[in-house]
Amino acid sequence: MAKEKDFVKEITPQSEDFSRWYLDTITKADLMDYSPVRGCIVFKPDGYELWEACQRELDRRFKATGHRNAYFPLFIPESFFEKEKEHVAGFNPELPWVTEVGDAKLEERLAIRPTSETIIGYMYSQWIQSYRDLPVLINQWANVVRWEKRTMPFLRTSEFLWQEGHTAHATDQEAREETMRMLDVYTDFVENELAIPVIRGQKTPSEKFPGAIATYSLEAMMKDGKALQAATSHYLGENFAQGFDIKFLDRDNERKFVHTTSWGMSTRILGALIMVHGDDRGLQLPPRIAPTQVMIVPIGPAKTRDRVLPAARQVMNALSDGGIRVQMDASEDQSPGWKFNEYEMRGVPVRLELGPRDLDADQAVLARRDTGEKETVPLAQITTRIPALLAEIQQSMFTRAQEFQREHSRIAANLADLHEIVRTERGFALVGWCGSAACEEKIKEETGATSRNIPFSPPAHIDVCVTCGQKAEHTVWFARSY
Amino acid sequence: MAKEKDFVKEITPQSEDFSRWYLDTITKADLMDYSPVRGCIVFKPDGYELWEACQRELDRRFKATGHRNAYFPLFIPESFFEKEKEHVAGFNPELPWVTEVGDAKLEERLAIRPTSETIIGYMYSQWIQSYRDLPVLINQWANVVRWEKRTMPFLRTSEFLWQEGHTAHATDQEAREETMRMLDVYTDFVENELAIPVIRGQKTPSEKFPGAIATYSLEAMMKDGKALQAATSHYLGENFAQGFDIKFLDRDNERKFVHTTSWGMSTRILGALIMVHGDDRGLQLPPRIAPTQVMIVPIGPAKTRDRVLPAARQVMNALSDGGIRVQMDASEDQSPGWKFNEYEMRGVPVRLELGPRDLDADQAVLARRDTGEKETVPLAQITTRIPALLAEIQQSMFTRAQEFQREHSRIAANLADLHEIVRTERGFALVGWCGSAACEEKIKEETGATSRNIPFSPPAHIDVCVTCGQKAEHTVWFARSY
Repeated sequence: MAKEKDFVKEITPQSEDFSRWYLDTITKADLMDYSPVRGCIVFKPDGYELWEACQRELDRRFKATGHRNAYFPLFIPESFFEKEKEHVAGFNPELPWVTEVGDAKLEERLAIRPTSETIIGYMYSQWIQSYRDLPVLINQWANVVRWEKRTMPFLRTSEFLWQEGHTAHATDQEAREETMRMLDVYTDFVENELAIPVIRGQKTPSEKFPGAIATYSLEAMMKDGKALQAATSHYLGENFAQGFDIKFLDRDNERKFVHTTSWGMSTRILGALIMVHGDDRGLQLPPRIAPTQVMIVPIGPAKTRDRVLPAARQVMNALSDGGIRVQMDASEDQSPGWKFNEYEMRGVPVRLELGPRDLDADQAVLARRDTGEKETVPLAQITTRIPALLAEIQQSMFTRAQEFQREHSRIAANLADLHEIVRTERGFALVGWCGSAACEEKIKEETGATSRNIPFSPPAHIDVCVTCGQKAEHTVWFARSY
Repeated sequence: MAKEKDFVKEITPQSEDFSRWYLDTITKADLMDYSPVRGCIVFKPDGYELWEACQRELDRRFKATGHRNAYFPLFIPESFFEKEKEHVAGFNPELPWVTEVGDAKLEERLAIRPTSETIIGYMYSQWIQSYRDLPVLINQWANVVRWEKRTMPFLRTSEFLWQEGHTAHATDQEAREETMRMLDVYTDFVENELAIPVIRGQKTPSEKFPGAIATYSLEAMMKDGKALQAATSHYLGENFAQGFDIKFLDRDNERKFVHTTSWGMSTRILGALIMVHGDDRGLQLPPRIAPTQVMIVPIGPAKTRDRVLPAARQVMNALSDGGIRVQMDASEDQSPGWKFNEYEMRGVPVRLELGPRDLDADQAVLARRDTGEKETVPLAQITTRIPALLAEIQQSMFTRAQEFQREHSRIAANLADLHEIVRTERGFALVGWCGSAACEEKIKEETGATSRNIPFSPPAHIDVCVTCGQKAEHTVWFARSY
């Protein structure tokens, strides 16, 4: 698909227009395309490959914590939504309805799932009879649909891909532990694989999942200072168990409701990956998640190709044998300079340059995508240097994102200051909050910022509500958000 | 989910009622459950795990042949179906339509994809401009929906999971080669991983994919003598290229239509896996695809557990380190006899029994699921014997299925004989066919058998049409089918 390459399109600088930068980057890096269906995108191979890498790493962690995958129907009967009243109110406006099949009207409308608590709750009510059936620890990889008014590729699309975990437990405590365990799994994945530092905390009641007792989230800061909710984990208590009559006979011979949880991460995480690390040259992928970690570019005059290419191939094979995801671009129709730009734009963490002079000196040049630094490495040390370099880059990218987040976060003294932080300084504001929905709503109206979460480890305690000046019950992060 | 285990349900013998046997087996083995949505099933963890194993093996082969994964929207605008006239006629009666979102009517109805040639064709028309953009080799893992009148778990469900490959090529020849290459990939997967022998051939015009020039299929014989189409690969010619205006500028500076292919395999393959190998004791899984290849069952009196369990764990770890998928059931609440039956029913290829007397003799007992044979193996040889045994079982299962297929296939002398073969002998009938749709239709009406395919390597050539007695143009397999 060389079409995009034919018209080399500049990427708008981040400082000029961040949204434009984002759209330019994902288009130029060939991650996605718009589709003829409103609000739905096509995940092109380079974009889908990033999701596959996330799936692989998440799935491994889910299985290591005892979960198994299953698959439930795409369609949810209309009556199911009525069984949990907050849930129906929360999702109804966004539901696409199947009303006809072929030429025939359906007796009951079927919604396309926006999330699967209801249909899975129904199935659990069939499967769970005794304490011996618990816990049920199931995850589903699926597409879901929420008809969004305003859409943005990856971040908010009408159809998106995700995983949704649904578990059922005998006790409240176990379910709460599961909720936190999965928040930990997400934190581990996002921080260690994607090199994205997150703020962990609980959502305010107005921002929680419809039907949950408590929602916990990971919030990440994009380079424009806006927040992106990277994952959520919900403690659902007995809400869905009551709606779907999911009961079990306990050891004490009493029939009790189970306690359920649900937790999800979606393809919007790709948006975070792009907006946390990308720069004016394009994507920047952390080595652990990058589909290609090292791109080998042979250089030098055409007549030296016969010498350089076999040596480059040898390096490639040695790296590949060592478990490095490596590729080589030996094509003759593009210059080395074009290739350097291209793979920087596509975010490959390390470029390996090899030319005839390097060969004479038994060395290669390694260029880091993150800092632009180059180093010369003896060929004999390449297979040990590269893994170390990739680990350094992974760590640097995380540290850099963490510093950026720290520099763009501070306590807001009052509403005007909060406005200043989220609008002018482009960052996160920490405030005291009395706990009233009215005060939270007022912040949103006056600053455009929404509450992100009530952090588990706030950097400071704040005594009074930023809105009303009454005693603060919570310390909350506010930010503009995606 | 011990509920199913609590009521030990007998499996109906295959000879008594094959369908009943099938439903009993998949329920008792906990592979699926019925859902509250008409014709849709739930893939329970043990069933979904089989599909994950198929995905892993197929995906590896797709990537090794140069394909990449992508993801296209679930929804297809109504107008897209009109662009290929056979296609719309073929799928229209089975399409669910989204007509409303929230409270609002949509301007154009959206179909839930039954297959994605149309929307992918539209995208390809945007992406392909020049011969340099070709070939496009993309695969999609997705759910699709075809509202079926009669459904059967895995075999025919309203929603199912599959992969669909969609490729575009510069020349007719390349596209035809791709069509055959993917039929080869499927053959390799089905025969070597699933141990299911297949008949390869071309579909008759009445049975081909709506919109294809030619459809090729793999046909497998179930233990009741019915056929199951295991995979299809379609040569679509310029049909979709013309419908969606997918043109490229060729080397000779002329704008030409691309030639496309599509090919798919779905979760119905799980039905084949079950019905080709299963027996009256339940599932029988070929070692290469079995999620658990070896089940270790410690035996002997309770007081010897302290000796037996550590030794069994050591064997398990040694096997696991050697890449064998091994589990142990050391639970105390079920007897060894119960466990033997349970894992036979679940189809685990090898059971390893270890008790105190075995330990005294430095040996273990291996029991094959397929033949029921037992052998005693010195503990020191377990890690070399098991891989060899699994390979033997894989080979035996294939050979056994192949012999069954051979024994239940023969040439039909006339329509009455064909009726006899498919009804009484329960098998496949090879016939000569003049090529007329009327003769094919008559066979279907009189015998209930449908044409399976025109085999590439017919076991015999037949001169005259079984229906009209005119010169036969083709030799065709007929069978009753799923």
